[in-house]
Amino acid sequence: MRVGVFGASGYAGLELLRILLRHPTFELAAVTSEKRAGQPVGDAFPSLRGQLDLAFEASDPERVAERIELAFTALPHSASAPTVAALRKAGVAVADLSADFRLRSPEVYRAWYGEHPAPELLAEAVYGLPELHRDDLRGAGLVACPGCYPTGALLPLVPFLRAGLVETTGIVVDAKSGISGAGRKIEAGYLFAELDENAAAYKVGRAHRHGPELEQEASGAAGEEVCASFVPQLIPTIRGILTSVYARTRQPMSAVEAHGVLDKAYAGERFVRVLPVGETPSLAAVRGSNFCDVAAFDDERNGVLILLSALDNLGKGAAGQAVQCANLMRGLPEESGLLEAPLFP
Amino acid sequence: MRVGVFGASGYAGLELLRILLRHPTFELAAVTSEKRAGQPVGDAFPSLRGQLDLAFEASDPERVAERIELAFTALPHSASAPTVAALRKAGVAVADLSADFRLRSPEVYRAWYGEHPAPELLAEAVYGLPELHRDDLRGAGLVACPGCYPTGALLPLVPFLRAGLVETTGIVVDAKSGISGAGRKIEAGYLFAELDENAAAYKVGRAHRHGPELEQEASGAAGEEVCASFVPQLIPTIRGILTSVYARTRQPMSAVEAHGVLDKAYAGERFVRVLPVGETPSLAAVRGSNFCDVAAFDDERNGVLILLSALDNLGKGAAGQAVQCANLMRGLPEESGLLEAPLFP
Amino acid sequence: MRVGVFGASGYAGLELLRILLRHPTFELAAVTSEKRAGQPVGDAFPSLRGQLDLAFEASDPERVAERIELAFTALPHSASAPTVAALRKAGVAVADLSADFRLRSPEVYRAWYGEHPAPELLAEAVYGLPELHRDDLRGAGLVACPGCYPTGALLPLVPFLRAGLVETTGIVVDAKSGISGAGRKIEAGYLFAELDENAAAYKVGRAHRHGPELEQEASGAAGEEVCASFVPQLIPTIRGILTSVYARTRQPMSAVEAHGVLDKAYAGERFVRVLPVGETPSLAAVRGSNFCDVAAFDDERNGVLILLSALDNLGKGAAGQAVQCANLMRGLPEESGLLEAPLFP
Amino acid sequence: MRVGVFGASGYAGLELLRILLRHPTFELAAVTSEKRAGQPVGDAFPSLRGQLDLAFEASDPERVAERIELAFTALPHSASAPTVAALRKAGVAVADLSADFRLRSPEVYRAWYGEHPAPELLAEAVYGLPELHRDDLRGAGLVACPGCYPTGALLPLVPFLRAGLVETTGIVVDAKSGISGAGRKIEAGYLFAELDENAAAYKVGRAHRHGPELEQEASGAAGEEVCASFVPQLIPTIRGILTSVYARTRQPMSAVEAHGVLDKAYAGERFVRVLPVGETPSLAAVRGSNFCDVAAFDDERNGVLILLSALDNLGKGAAGQAVQCANLMRGLPEESGLLEAPLFP
Repeated sequence: MRVGVFGASGYAGLELLRILLRHPTFELAAVTSEKRAGQPVGDAFPSLRGQLDLAFEASDPERVAERIELAFTALPHSASAPTVAALRKAGVAVADLSADFRLRSPEVYRAWYGEHPAPELLAEAVYGLPELHRDDLRGAGLVACPGCYPTGALLPLVPFLRAGLVETTGIVVDAKSGISGAGRKIEAGYLFAELDENAAAYKVGRAHRHGPELEQEASGAAGEEVCASFVPQLIPTIRGILTSVYARTRQPMSAVEAHGVLDKAYAGERFVRVLPVGETPSLAAVRGSNFCDVAAFDDERNGVLILLSALDNLGKGAAGQAVQCANLMRGLPEESGLLEAPLFP
Repeated sequence: MRVGVFGASGYAGLELLRILLRHPTFELAAVTSEKRAGQPVGDAFPSLRGQLDLAFEASDPERVAERIELAFTALPHSASAPTVAALRKAGVAVADLSADFRLRSPEVYRAWYGEHPAPELLAEAVYGLPELHRDDLRGAGLVACPGCYPTGALLPLVPFLRAGLVETTGIVVDAKSGISGAGRKIEAGYLFAELDENAAAYKVGRAHRHGPELEQEASGAAGEEVCASFVPQLIPTIRGILTSVYARTRQPMSAVEAHGVLDKAYAGERFVRVLPVGETPSLAAVRGSNFCDVAAFDDERNGVLILLSALDNLGKGAAGQAVQCANLMRGLPEESGLLEAPLFP
Repeated sequence: MRVGVFGASGYAGLELLRILLRHPTFELAAVTSEKRAGQPVGDAFPSLRGQLDLAFEASDPERVAERIELAFTALPHSASAPTVAALRKAGVAVADLSADFRLRSPEVYRAWYGEHPAPELLAEAVYGLPELHRDDLRGAGLVACPGCYPTGALLPLVPFLRAGLVETTGIVVDAKSGISGAGRKIEAGYLFAELDENAAAYKVGRAHRHGPELEQEASGAAGEEVCASFVPQLIPTIRGILTSVYARTRQPMSAVEAHGVLDKAYAGERFVRVLPVGETPSLAAVRGSNFCDVAAFDDERNGVLILLSALDNLGKGAAGQAVQCANLMRGLPEESGLLEAPLFP
Repeated sequence: MRVGVFGASGYAGLELLRILLRHPTFELAAVTSEKRAGQPVGDAFPSLRGQLDLAFEASDPERVAERIELAFTALPHSASAPTVAALRKAGVAVADLSADFRLRSPEVYRAWYGEHPAPELLAEAVYGLPELHRDDLRGAGLVACPGCYPTGALLPLVPFLRAGLVETTGIVVDAKSGISGAGRKIEAGYLFAELDENAAAYKVGRAHRHGPELEQEASGAAGEEVCASFVPQLIPTIRGILTSVYARTRQPMSAVEAHGVLDKAYAGERFVRVLPVGETPSLAAVRGSNFCDVAAFDDERNGVLILLSALDNLGKGAAGQAVQCANLMRGLPEESGLLEAPLFP
């Protein structure tokens, strides 16, 4: 089954190539990059030298559509929607990694990103978190792959919201991300000499675009409006997001009880690993993989439930999850191409 | 003025040597280390080669006391108290970097560390956070230097507790520490190959010894019992603690108003830098220094006040703060030896 | 085809598990670890949680031999040979990752490691560098997998020695290794706080055990004794060895000519990638893979040929190469299980 | 004594500020930066917040000259020379950190950098390696501070060249540098996600500008033309250069004999630390300091002398060395402002 990757030279795009190269069913038939059009992939990215016989091409969705059944679009927001629209028109299924189809409301989109370029497609788009929306993803034509931060917060939190076990306001999401989450932005702030041995929060206080996405999905799960303070932070790793979610419990809940909730929610899930009680998720345990490890701790004296998760922002936070969605979209085994063990050490 | 460092071969001890070597008044007259007794300091630690003409000696507080006016004790908890007692008996002032005199209650100490080895000294000990207890520190004979985590949480939080602006329960302290905070423990978990590109929480849910210390001091500032969920995490840096404190506001408060509170609390302070509204503290800005940078952000819609701080766990979190206290103890200018600019990049 | 891994809880052992989990033919049937005997693999190593249903067992080669056709032995030197002997006696093929069968001379072994525990097996052992000894590896019963450093030096150097293009004395091998090359040694020198932002040489001047191995194989290729100064260094990466080899040319040779030699030597090789003239190998391009990237530069004015290589010390430098050898030993496609793309970024 | 820093917002410039802030005699009176003109230093660089009360100004050497006695120019090559010329004309002493006055021959300069902007000043310029040219530096008006790589290679090598103990051809300089050595270049290749866990050579084979500088000074020391193959490499540290120099000995020389040569050459030197025989220099031992640690190892069987050094490229490799020179230029104690202990851990 032939697939294409639009925007293949960014970090999420490169991770898609890495996964698709080992995928048993999907076959890479087109990779686009405006900057590197004409360049063989292996020349541009030495890690992929000798791995595939394709050159980057400029994006031309109509022409590429003739060659592929499904597309992964890893383009900047706003730039993605027109490409997606052209691909959908040509009958190509799309797993979109941009933010363009994550927010259901065009008004909210406008507030954060500007006028929506293709609002007519919003109704079709399914939010691509398979553990929450698997049935809708099977056979879907357009999937909005979640942001990396919302994935890390929603997976541990949603079971408690669905069960009405925590307050829906006063929630705190304190997330620490590796640098690749910022994409391949060439700015002083992302230089090695500025980031190594460093860590800092950024876009604090309702300033980060993943905030409304997180609240939208959390509210959907809770059945009422959820209010969460989201504090993203950069730490000096290439990959990985470590998330702490703090919520006030509606009734005392021990760590064991909380793990019961998680175990029940994720029984049979291949990619969400509920850790034994007392263990904490770590980035090294998920590096390069599609896993999200989750755990719960109580602080009953303080009425606070502590939820922790770890994922690879380029794996379960982006490319891995997109492939998981694409597998569902095309009726393949959900784990196809995704069972590679994490890279440790 | 001759001083000694007990336990000088740990990370906090080495940082004390680094600071004391440039101190205009204190003169290093004795450094102890059981493991390295007899070894010249510069042979044991190549960074200090050619910097001082002293050899490590085995700890013998009575004899060392004859040579010094003030001692820094950077020994493990429980091991520290007997040394401190001997030094105090010999009339030597002590800045103790262990946990032995931080908790005012011997019962609480027993619950976390075991039977207190010198409870009779608890009454004399002053908690060594100069910005909160400066008057008590002037001329003090025994100072309990705070833990690194409590320092990072208390400095931004206490002004709001003192002013009664936030709820005293439901507080969350999410702290990310560099590895040197664990001391020079030789365990698999602290190996480079396990920690680089990694991050994880540990001792979550009332399991870390800095929790009761933090609540003790916060409660003292609030005038009522404070309840805080403390989640320590390791990130792959050598030095630095980045702390987020989340508290529910008693009335809506903007970031500007919150900065007004911080500005007022820390006007004239040399080592607490209140950042401009909208800037976030970063580890790189305090590396190797005695500064603690603090900032506040609001999330009025969620009723949450977000307080951020950054410090060097070996500087303001340990050795720097100990020297600041010692300066006060001996009537020296508080900033003596501590004005070195942070190492950036 | 059922295989076992002896010493599976070291870094090379864990990498073997990671590769074997995706191998299309080999099936993991036994994993041994003295320290972790009885513990399920996924409990001991969180990255492998949910990936395989095996527990570590204590090493008992006779009993394990009943279950497997081929064994990977990743035990410390001297400890490996007796296990290998028992396995061979039971008819099990062995790819040995220790140093026990790399040196052909028991006298040289004695000088570096002590009395050889199983000299009778030395004659059977094939040095497991497939690009140099492929024919001997096909169907072999005992393979001595090369050290990580010799692999990085030999691959770029051997073609020039074979062709008699460089002097056989005065060769310099300056190698920089990631920390995992030291194995999981729990020593102060391998702590994150000591190694991050650090780099240093160690065992300089005929003091490292990989020196005689390197000279043995280089001499074999040259048909005369080769003399090389080997300087190993640690740099703050988890994985990877970057090697510079310096040799005096017997006649002027341009970079283009040198690349001609490399191209010819490695035409058709799947895992040695000769870079385009002017490009330099980098660790990031081979991370997590079985590739070794090589390149040559001239300094004709100085009469020096500069050869550079990059490999992953746990991949082509250990576990990857062992699986490549095992594939040859059992008549499988040489690249089985080894085509995973490197992890970048 | 009032001094100014031109180009104060680059990494070398910032390190100059850090050192000058603690200097007992020099007083910072002007700091220039085109990009940040008008901005208070502490606003632009949070590490310096509250440390000095100066704003960046645009470069205007004539006007700045009225306020200062000595200038540090840390501008890009070619841009530096005109500023230096204006300052010299106004009678200001200059320690220039650019490459503009390092090469004595305008022809060589032209080949590497283009037409020399101020060849008339070349005769006045003294090469600023105090351990080699101290007498010429005392009272000098214009000093060309050495490149970081040449400093690391020359300090261990020159004593052997001067004594005629090694061959002057076939020398190899294999140098590994932290990223800050590249300056604050905002390019994809310097991003954290590309450099962490990575290492690679660059500008190999007479392609790096520090090559001719190194050969010029080595030739001067040897009294004959020296030929050295210089291979610069980036490793994932912020600071530090670890250098291996390989030279063929003219007669057998043991490590002990080689250390005798180094000890004699650097007896009484404050900033070159000759390590005990058998110890290797490490970056962590010199971080943030003006030290250069050196050591020698023999490989008599191979006829190769192995020289190792470690320095901080922003310290002894740039700003520290510039201040050391400036101290000599103005008759101050050579170590003024430079005795701060390295930052370890």
